[in-house]
Amino acid sequence: MKARVHITLKDGVLDPQGKAIGHALGNLGFDGVNGVRQGKVIELDLAATDRGAAEGQVEQMCRRLLANTVIENYKIELID
Amino acid sequence: MKARVHITLKDGVLDPQGKAIGHALGNLGFDGVNGVRQGKVIELDLAATDRGAAEGQVEQMCRRLLANTVIENYKIELID
Repeated sequence: MKARVHITLKDGVLDPQGKAIGHALGNLGFDGVNGVRQGKVIELDLAATDRGAAEGQVEQMCRRLLANTVIENYKIELID
Repeated sequence: MKARVHITLKDGVLDPQGKAIGHALGNLGFDGVNGVRQGKVIELDLAATDRGAAEGQVEQMCRRLLANTVIENYKIELID
C-alpha cells in the first residue's frame, strides 16, 4: 500500500521560501500572485496491506519524525 | 483562485532526502517501509478568476521557475 503525506506550515508561521518564490515570480513578470506557501509531500511505499494498520503506522511516523507538529500540519492520503 | 502544484522527482532520479527519511524511519523501529520519495507542494493564491487562464499561468510558472523539468514532474490542481 502506498501513502502520501502532505506537510504544510500552519497559518501564521512565516514561510521565507514561499516569499522568495513569490518575489521570483514577480520578477519574471507573473502578476496577480497574492501569496505563495511551500510545503512537502512524502510518498511512502508500505508493506502493510491493511488500510487501518497502514494509516495508524503513518500517523505515528508523522508524529515522531515526518512533521514538526508545533509549526506544521500533516494530511495522510492512502493510495490503493 | 487557489492552485496547488505537486512537484515530484521523476522515476530513476536519485532521492537522497527520501533515502535518509527511510533510514530514519527504520532506526525508529518502523518496519515494512519499502521506499520513500520526497517532493514539494507549492500553494499559490492567484488573482485570476478564470479557470483556464489560471491553469495556463500556473503551467508557465512551472516551466519557467517552479519545476526543473529535466528531473521533476509537476501536477497542477486548481481549488475553487
